[in-house]
Amino acid sequence: MDCKKVAIVMGSKSDLKNVMGAVNTLKSLEIDYEVRIMSAHRTPEAACAFASKARENGFGVIIAAAGKAAHLAGVLAAHTTLPVIGIPIKASALEGIDALLSTVQMPKGVPVATVAIDGAENAAILAAQILAVNQPELAEKLSQMKSNMAQEVLNADKQLQEELKNL
Amino acid sequence: MDCKKVAIVMGSKSDLKNVMGAVNTLKSLEIDYEVRIMSAHRTPEAACAFASKARENGFGVIIAAAGKAAHLAGVLAAHTTLPVIGIPIKASALEGIDALLSTVQMPKGVPVATVAIDGAENAAILAAQILAVNQPELAEKLSQMKSNMAQEVLNADKQLQEELKNL
Amino acid sequence: MDCKKVAIVMGSKSDLKNVMGAVNTLKSLEIDYEVRIMSAHRTPEAACAFASKARENGFGVIIAAAGKAAHLAGVLAAHTTLPVIGIPIKASALEGIDALLSTVQMPKGVPVATVAIDGAENAAILAAQILAVNQPELAEKLSQMKSNMAQEVLNADKQLQEELKNL
Amino acid sequence: MDCKKVAIVMGSKSDLKNVMGAVNTLKSLEIDYEVRIMSAHRTPEAACAFASKARENGFGVIIAAAGKAAHLAGVLAAHTTLPVIGIPIKASALEGIDALLSTVQMPKGVPVATVAIDGAENAAILAAQILAVNQPELAEKLSQMKSNMAQEVLNADKQLQEELKNL
Amino acid sequence: MDCKKVAIVMGSKSDLKNVMGAVNTLKSLEIDYEVRIMSAHRTPEAACAFASKARENGFGVIIAAAGKAAHLAGVLAAHTTLPVIGIPIKASALEGIDALLSTVQMPKGVPVATVAIDGAENAAILAAQILAVNQPELAEKLSQMKSNMAQEVLNADKQLQEELKNL
Amino acid sequence: MDCKKVAIVMGSKSDLKNVMGAVNTLKSLEIDYEVRIMSAHRTPEAACAFASKARENGFGVIIAAAGKAAHLAGVLAAHTTLPVIGIPIKASALEGIDALLSTVQMPKGVPVATVAIDGAENAAILAAQILAVNQPELAEKLSQMKSNMAQEVLNADKQLQEELKNL
Amino acid sequence: MDCKKVAIVMGSKSDLKNVMGAVNTLKSLEIDYEVRIMSAHRTPEAACAFASKARENGFGVIIAAAGKAAHLAGVLAAHTTLPVIGIPIKASALEGIDALLSTVQMPKGVPVATVAIDGAENAAILAAQILAVNQPELAEKLSQMKSNMAQEVLNADKQLQEELKNL
Amino acid sequence: MDCKKVAIVMGSKSDLKNVMGAVNTLKSLEIDYEVRIMSAHRTPEAACAFASKARENGFGVIIAAAGKAAHLAGVLAAHTTLPVIGIPIKASALEGIDALLSTVQMPKGVPVATVAIDGAENAAILAAQILAVNQPELAEKLSQMKSNMAQEVLNADKQLQEELKNL
Repeated sequence: MDCKKVAIVMGSKSDLKNVMGAVNTLKSLEIDYEVRIMSAHRTPEAACAFASKARENGFGVIIAAAGKAAHLAGVLAAHTTLPVIGIPIKASALEGIDALLSTVQMPKGVPVATVAIDGAENAAILAAQILAVNQPELAEKLSQMKSNMAQEVLNADKQLQEELKNL
Repeated sequence: MDCKKVAIVMGSKSDLKNVMGAVNTLKSLEIDYEVRIMSAHRTPEAACAFASKARENGFGVIIAAAGKAAHLAGVLAAHTTLPVIGIPIKASALEGIDALLSTVQMPKGVPVATVAIDGAENAAILAAQILAVNQPELAEKLSQMKSNMAQEVLNADKQLQEELKNL
Repeated sequence: MDCKKVAIVMGSKSDLKNVMGAVNTLKSLEIDYEVRIMSAHRTPEAACAFASKARENGFGVIIAAAGKAAHLAGVLAAHTTLPVIGIPIKASALEGIDALLSTVQMPKGVPVATVAIDGAENAAILAAQILAVNQPELAEKLSQMKSNMAQEVLNADKQLQEELKNL
Repeated sequence: MDCKKVAIVMGSKSDLKNVMGAVNTLKSLEIDYEVRIMSAHRTPEAACAFASKARENGFGVIIAAAGKAAHLAGVLAAHTTLPVIGIPIKASALEGIDALLSTVQMPKGVPVATVAIDGAENAAILAAQILAVNQPELAEKLSQMKSNMAQEVLNADKQLQEELKNL
Repeated sequence: MDCKKVAIVMGSKSDLKNVMGAVNTLKSLEIDYEVRIMSAHRTPEAACAFASKARENGFGVIIAAAGKAAHLAGVLAAHTTLPVIGIPIKASALEGIDALLSTVQMPKGVPVATVAIDGAENAAILAAQILAVNQPELAEKLSQMKSNMAQEVLNADKQLQEELKNL
Repeated sequence: MDCKKVAIVMGSKSDLKNVMGAVNTLKSLEIDYEVRIMSAHRTPEAACAFASKARENGFGVIIAAAGKAAHLAGVLAAHTTLPVIGIPIKASALEGIDALLSTVQMPKGVPVATVAIDGAENAAILAAQILAVNQPELAEKLSQMKSNMAQEVLNADKQLQEELKNL
Repeated sequence: MDCKKVAIVMGSKSDLKNVMGAVNTLKSLEIDYEVRIMSAHRTPEAACAFASKARENGFGVIIAAAGKAAHLAGVLAAHTTLPVIGIPIKASALEGIDALLSTVQMPKGVPVATVAIDGAENAAILAAQILAVNQPELAEKLSQMKSNMAQEVLNADKQLQEELKNL
Repeated sequence: MDCKKVAIVMGSKSDLKNVMGAVNTLKSLEIDYEVRIMSAHRTPEAACAFASKARENGFGVIIAAAGKAAHLAGVLAAHTTLPVIGIPIKASALEGIDALLSTVQMPKGVPVATVAIDGAENAAILAAQILAVNQPELAEKLSQMKSNMAQEVLNADKQLQEELKNL
């Protein structure tokens, strides 16, 4: 499948566990990706340079995961016209509401496509949906994934009926 | 420019004023769009049917605006593999926090790309960024829009210095 | 007792433990029920079909349990004129406040009778109260349950006085 | 139509404007109702007596509207096995979130069917749905109301298309 | 010391552990008290009767501890002119904020003297302060308690300086 | 009536309008009071000195009204063993929730009897209840006030029935 | 007075009215300042360049005012070792709580000294306090300002006593 | 290095673990400090006396850590013109949001430089930045610390690339 890469950027290595859901989802969809550690506050130059060149380096979407006053997605979005997806990470006393508001409440002109707190899988699916707008083959894979999800729920329901009968 | 259409869906006609920012932004970027009124709760069949056929009807992105227990974006996302952008509308006593959480906290498998409360312009820019992943011409327009925004801030700063000097 | 059935619908099998309180309460009141797994986002057609036919299939009340951006109760309510009771499930970083607002803040025209976060027992009692409006026998059982609850509190108080005396 | 009455109880006369939506909805459905002012804190005896005798006085559902530390619905529910619907009223600096939590977070054993903040119309529709469980004629009226709502949205959408064409 | 009794009322026996701080504080101040289990929702008559006769039964203050939609303090306050102190108990997914708002946001005419979430000790000290308004002997004990608290802090500070020196 | 005085302290003169409800309530109960402007942050010495001598100066209760990071009640409570009642004032962007938490969440040892946001009348009634613990005459006045409140609600209910009949 | 300059940076010209309190306070303390418009998202290069050179350009403190997902203070702090003071601006449906959390919840290593929502005067006083650490003359001015504030409160209290006497 | 001392004040010894991050950071920067236990509510005189004399006793900055209704930083700030840094401590059911609002929402005239909940390290870095305004040597150390932090992130990123390659 000939589509652009997805970048997964996180603020520190401790976020890797929160981000693995995105990595695995992209793998299962056979989408190329890179995983990077870059901090809006500790390595701002690296982050800005990465975003500025992301399009010409073959990326189609950037996923950014950060906690607390989560500026990473917004800072990357300031330096590119690629769509930037923000994953607010629950990483403070405030259970992630600080990261959610810091990510989603972007001012006019610089959007961040925000998913649920700790919603790494959904970030990856959204990235795939974006790449699939012009990729019928990938769209087909997403359709298949959607059918599979539905089937799992239907199966769970069927199995539950059996279990309840035998109760 | 030969790119896909954007659908702007709102739950009731009273949301039109909140949605005009998206309409005007898409117009200024010369992106085709349709504006529809469809309700997750009052016309669910129409909404589901629309989402199910959106891709084959030439849409590339769906923007959904809704307030209170804002299910519209999620319901549409359940019926398509196109990216769905959610605009939480401030339409209740709770200042939009209900709409924000109802839109962004989607369960695993069905993402909604959420923008700020009442963030219609950003929803449109995000839609354009999505379409521009494979549309260099549109990407160029977005770059130009970014430069213009920067120039406006630089001009405002310059003008402020003049005003302060003359104080 | 010849009264209608209660449907207990949950978004995924992992919610079963949160829903057992409702199952047990209905059992103890000898009310017929069915327990189903159906997702507003992953099996929306199944959910809509179920709600649309619930009345003719002998149901009198639908209880829906869901977490995060909890759309399940609202989606079911959109497809039936039966009363729908929503149980917001604590299933995210936000401790259930997202599920509560997504369930209770329904727009005009489509109510959801919302109970407390994780309030499965109360959902079942409310369902029984609804069925008992025209079922004196069931109303009598609910009266009895209320008396029992009161007696338990009075007994606990009496026992406490003994314990404190012996302290 | 031979069905039970609905009681609409409010904590003070100033809540009447918030409650009129319920009155008008019940009227339009030709359901008998009484509107009462009773306070959980200022006339607790009257409120308790009313709830205790509501069933034998021909009521099928009680709707209670209150703001701030809204105890009215809960206090009524403590004295009856009829379903009690709570409308949290926005009546304080806290925009109704205090009334919502005071109404919905009821302890095990005494449910309150809570609707949205200031959701008087929905409280009345929910009351009608409850009465309609065993009243096919009323159920039919609710179906008709649902169809009308849908038609209004479809019409608004059609009209919008015309307006946009002429823009 | 000849002063009135303090009542400590809790909604269920499970609150006893949250209330022991009040019991122990009253004991250490040699104030007479009774501990009772009474529920605003499950034994409302017992609760109302208790409050109505509290003054003539020799109580000077009532402390009420309850969680979730905590109506207990308010219901007691509705039936007495004695000061009622409310302890919001953390007993739900919402970490006690529901109990706090349900306790403190009382409507005009019926105050509840609210202390911190799970603030049982402070409820007892406040009760003692109320009784001490006209009890110089008890006021003296409270002064002594205040001095002791101060001395503990001063000692801790002194000890810390030693520890830091030896580091 | 021979009972102690009530002090009403506010952080700045702009709070006077929020405090007048307390003044008028105390007047109507014929309780002596003083109204003072003292700031925890701008005149801390005056505030501390006032609290330290309040008991010997004939005060029985101190009411403190403050907004934002409302430290006034806590600071006064640190310097007296008299009961201190806190009125959180809505005076910031945060609608008084900051003042509520700053007032009610006092650490162990130093309680503040907190009433509702902007709850000046209730603060005065609570002060009267405290003074009335040993003042049967004042207790009688409070009983009368309670009866009057009840009568007003009963009258409003009666009048409403008339109005609805004539509709 | 020979002390360093203060920079006041805001995200857009519309913030000027929120920032004037800081300007006037610095003027009254005779501290040199510059007021600049720079956006973390629309002119990130300008903002970063400004912060990087602020120390060598003679600034001692940077004040940054921004609303919504307020990244400005954090972005500036990432590029300097000067103290950065953040003023969260109330500029969205969420009343400034988004700006507060985005400003204050900075990750380890890059602090922002946050003041109250819309707290421009306090930001300026804090900046002056910072410059005064090694500037006895400025410290003296701040002492004087503190005395004046105290005197205003004492005068207001005195005047109130007069007014109440004449009531 | 000849610069002023930093005071670290906490409300009780149990806060020591939350404060050690500040102690260690100041040590690593070779800044003199004192650690004190003083309570705004239990030893207010000690706290006020300490703040009043802090400047003349050689302190340049005061760091105050407190939880719940965290008045400590504000009370200290009321008695000095030195910059006071507040660390809100997570010490209650409310996860530190009470301490945050009690610390940051200071009224006009008395600022507290607030850092993140439990942000002790950042409080120390901010204190160092304040002292470094006129201390090039300390500024240099802070620059070095900033470079080290950046290098750690760059190294972590490099190492991650290796790990992913070998996966």
